[in-house]
Amino acid sequence: MTKELIKTIFARRSIREYTAEVISEKAIKTMLEAAMAAPSASNRKPWHFIVVTDRQFLDNLARVHPYGKMLSKAPLCIVVCGDTTISARYWVQDCSAATENLLLAAAALGLGAVWLGVYPRGERVGPIRKVLNIPETIVPLNLISIGHPAEEKEPRTQYDEQRVRRQQW
Amino acid sequence: MTKELIKTIFARRSIREYTAEVISEKAIKTMLEAAMAAPSASNRKPWHFIVVTDRQFLDNLARVHPYGKMLSKAPLCIVVCGDTTISARYWVQDCSAATENLLLAAAALGLGAVWLGVYPRGERVGPIRKVLNIPETIVPLNLISIGHPAEEKEPRTQYDEQRVRRQQW
Repeated sequence: MTKELIKTIFARRSIREYTAEVISEKAIKTMLEAAMAAPSASNRKPWHFIVVTDRQFLDNLARVHPYGKMLSKAPLCIVVCGDTTISARYWVQDCSAATENLLLAAAALGLGAVWLGVYPRGERVGPIRKVLNIPETIVPLNLISIGHPAEEKEPRTQYDEQRVRRQQW
Repeated sequence: MTKELIKTIFARRSIREYTAEVISEKAIKTMLEAAMAAPSASNRKPWHFIVVTDRQFLDNLARVHPYGKMLSKAPLCIVVCGDTTISARYWVQDCSAATENLLLAAAALGLGAVWLGVYPRGERVGPIRKVLNIPETIVPLNLISIGHPAEEKEPRTQYDEQRVRRQQW
């Protein structure tokens, strides 16, 4: 179990080029199941997911995110949103853990994905809210662009001994 | 690959009771390798990890975290810290993704762990900073209490169709 998990964690890379092949509903569900199995503070689950497969919405997202050009080629974008009415304090952490699960599931499914940061940049949050009709209490944390990979990257760890301390700082 | 990954994701539960058995250095390294393989905004890796195995430090952490009592029995605590000088904007998200990888590695290794939230609660950040000598530019995001499990929990997804929207909100 450990080996397979670590292999998937190392294999997950940011993939920005995709084939035209669509993503199956089964794969979408697997990614969402993984995301929602994440831990959350007091198990409040302050997350929502917008599954975007419509070409016009994808193109609009590509237009409003400064690094989102690949969305005009991607067959799928999942927008991870935080619900500030459920957890004002911990939604960013909880939704980030859910996002990492989603990305790992994508990698395990043989898909390529990339995390495009949105929150806390107001100049990204606002336009994306507008494109997707997201209400004020809900915050788009990121856009996850997903497709069948048309580029390959080597698995890797980025382990750095200098980032590890013992007993105290 | 998908099945094993999903199995680990579902198997990861919050485990707060542990046996007295210590955690091997090899297992600690595997968890840190997993953590540092996480994605981060512009690949800045704004994280540090404090590996605490000294009984006195563990007891002090147990004392200052309101839900940290189990640390007085745990053989290991890993403190995930964000470096605000590396990424003021995205360190919470990046360190949360790293934390989720760490928790999944723990689960895959057959260990039990629980994420104890620290930031953004000042009344937790301050005392923990003091116990571990953490400088002002570094923020303890959480305490991860880890041990060989002495309680069992069923694997689960928390998939909820009501948290999924299509094309737009």
